[in-house]
Amino acid sequence: MPATWLEDLPEDSPFGPDNLPYGCFTTDDAPTSPRVGIRIGDRVLDAAACARAVGDPHVELLDHPTLNPLLAAGPAAWRAVRAAVTTWVTDPGLRPVVQPCLVPLDRVRLHLPFEVADYVDFYSSEHHATNVGRMFRPDSDPLPANWKHLPIGYHGRAGTVVVSGTPVVRPMGQRRAPGSAGPSYGACLRLDFEAEVGFVVGTPTALGERVPLSALAEHVFGVCLVNDWSARDIQSWEYVPLGPFLGKSFATSVSPWIVPLDALQAARTAPPARDVELLPYLDDSGEQPWGLDLRLTVSLNGHPISRPRFADMYYTPAQQLTHMTVNGARLRTGDLFASGTVSGPDREQRGSMLELSWSGREPLVLPDGTERAFLEDGDELTVTAWAPGPGSSRIGFGEVTGRVLPARD
Amino acid sequence: MPATWLEDLPEDSPFGPDNLPYGCFTTDDAPTSPRVGIRIGDRVLDAAACARAVGDPHVELLDHPTLNPLLAAGPAAWRAVRAAVTTWVTDPGLRPVVQPCLVPLDRVRLHLPFEVADYVDFYSSEHHATNVGRMFRPDSDPLPANWKHLPIGYHGRAGTVVVSGTPVVRPMGQRRAPGSAGPSYGACLRLDFEAEVGFVVGTPTALGERVPLSALAEHVFGVCLVNDWSARDIQSWEYVPLGPFLGKSFATSVSPWIVPLDALQAARTAPPARDVELLPYLDDSGEQPWGLDLRLTVSLNGHPISRPRFADMYYTPAQQLTHMTVNGARLRTGDLFASGTVSGPDREQRGSMLELSWSGREPLVLPDGTERAFLEDGDELTVTAWAPGPGSSRIGFGEVTGRVLPARD
Repeated sequence: MPATWLEDLPEDSPFGPDNLPYGCFTTDDAPTSPRVGIRIGDRVLDAAACARAVGDPHVELLDHPTLNPLLAAGPAAWRAVRAAVTTWVTDPGLRPVVQPCLVPLDRVRLHLPFEVADYVDFYSSEHHATNVGRMFRPDSDPLPANWKHLPIGYHGRAGTVVVSGTPVVRPMGQRRAPGSAGPSYGACLRLDFEAEVGFVVGTPTALGERVPLSALAEHVFGVCLVNDWSARDIQSWEYVPLGPFLGKSFATSVSPWIVPLDALQAARTAPPARDVELLPYLDDSGEQPWGLDLRLTVSLNGHPISRPRFADMYYTPAQQLTHMTVNGARLRTGDLFASGTVSGPDREQRGSMLELSWSGREPLVLPDGTERAFLEDGDELTVTAWAPGPGSSRIGFGEVTGRVLPARD
Repeated sequence: MPATWLEDLPEDSPFGPDNLPYGCFTTDDAPTSPRVGIRIGDRVLDAAACARAVGDPHVELLDHPTLNPLLAAGPAAWRAVRAAVTTWVTDPGLRPVVQPCLVPLDRVRLHLPFEVADYVDFYSSEHHATNVGRMFRPDSDPLPANWKHLPIGYHGRAGTVVVSGTPVVRPMGQRRAPGSAGPSYGACLRLDFEAEVGFVVGTPTALGERVPLSALAEHVFGVCLVNDWSARDIQSWEYVPLGPFLGKSFATSVSPWIVPLDALQAARTAPPARDVELLPYLDDSGEQPWGLDLRLTVSLNGHPISRPRFADMYYTPAQQLTHMTVNGARLRTGDLFASGTVSGPDREQRGSMLELSWSGREPLVLPDGTERAFLEDGDELTVTAWAPGPGSSRIGFGEVTGRVLPARD
């Protein structure tokens, strides 16, 4: 990694100068004025203040309460800003002007880093889709007929995307008890998480434009972690025939740091072999594919319960973006698309309680001796991840975390 | 209706002083500066210019390129602005200052009148859902088990909501021919419309808040017409298990005039009798219900092909709003929710080509002798509507129209 003048930054920090993720923060002295920050080690660089101090012209992209103006500026600007920031934290000559712009991480509050335009959620883990199919539709093929031909996805609620740390109130709603003729109304009884990876769109497209597989990096600015909170009982009663609605729309949490796609070059990897030939627009066999070697850890109340690997995903984010726009649907700055639950082939790689407890039939036993089929009030669910960086470095994603609060009558 | 000083406004105009719908327009002399306009007869009142000329303090809510600031201001402000506008067009003493703010309708260009936050589409016509069920799932009950217990809905793509008049390019995508093992790629072969009614949310809610049935008018600013363009072949291949995605996301057209909910008091009517008891949170039997007597006309290339009645909808917009927020999902200013296809019990009341041609098996014959199973390139599809106003007056909705352009290779 490039040498930095920050003396207390450990060599193996997942937030070294190879990463430099973007977020938005406030400090106690200006609690209502979010600013763009760049994480390095356990500090946050006030990006606009630093650009101004250094005399960098990109200050106009950075001096905003969200990342949206930077996102909209496109890949040439993203690269230029990243190069500038790298210089700021590595050029010892700049230290006197840059150092005053660093704020300790424990003195900032982190906010939703971008205004979400449309939110799309995919369903691209073969292991997850197979597990769900086995549980929900035991009498048919676990994978629907379309699954190996396209990345299945649906639109979620952009207005309830919240930043990590936001408490999640257990939703009320309709659900039908097994064996019951009709539904009843009450608090969700099968509250779940889904560990996912999210992709943040910067460069928009015009209505009618299609994005080819090769253009992911022209449109996607960066990557975050996503917890797609799910009310399984509400979802299973409502989802035929138009898909999940209230079972998902109460909250979707995202990690506060957006890792630039450029920081993930060393993490690129081949996706799993596809056993069904894809139509040409989705066929990435002639491309350098966009599989990504991200290692996720899911913890419940601080205890790791799963370690899914993003490299196991059947469809890549490039395929998802291409599919999402093949009908001419336009992209907007701030669009977020998530991978779908990341589950691996092994039991300890499952990315949801539904799978970990096999629909509640095999509850998890936590170190405190309690059992969990689904999430209980007070539970705190956290997803972290890292990816290989250049050399032996690691690229950290931080965490997406949230605590379950009781339902409100 | 209150008497207006506009001399050339016909007594029976559907855009008389009982209506006063809001939109956003530009004129040739300022083509890049949309302004809020209020339609009266065949004129558009430049709202901010008029407020300024009259010395009305609401100018700050009106002097914007979209309706969003007015939407966000809430029902007391909506009523105050409506009362002020009514005075402007009825008080002869104001004529000298108001008249210069009127622009002929044929000299304006109309724009999307609000920034769409989340877009939700319901499925609340029993006749439509039954027809679709019979065609798509002939071996099971036409209505899913949940249908009479909740208004089924899903999130659509907010970024492709376009204003009436925007051409619609036939989408490309995956579809599977009947009898085929796998999908092929190409232009949609079963392009359809869906005639719907849309509700525009003004007042937001906090995360966790539920909106009761009685509070529709506290949150919904007004009503428009919606054409939920649908690619039936793409949709039927993709929609299991997570619902419609690319089959709907290429375009959704809305009419340019938002009719204030306050203009529809005389159109309120009882919804059809429900034959399954609703859970208390959806039971509107103790309320003045929000069924609405809107009469729609669907025309294909100028020829009326259907006359659905919104009064036939099984669920009201109040029930849809209550259901959409029962899980604590927050509302944002600019949220749009649509009713779902409006179809009646009779053949000539069906709100989609899918139903009118019975999935293509009974093509429509147009006056020019051509047949239509689905929409062809060059076809222009228009939905208009009116509702009863006070006395014998009519409240017009104008139209949502769009022409189909050929697919782009």
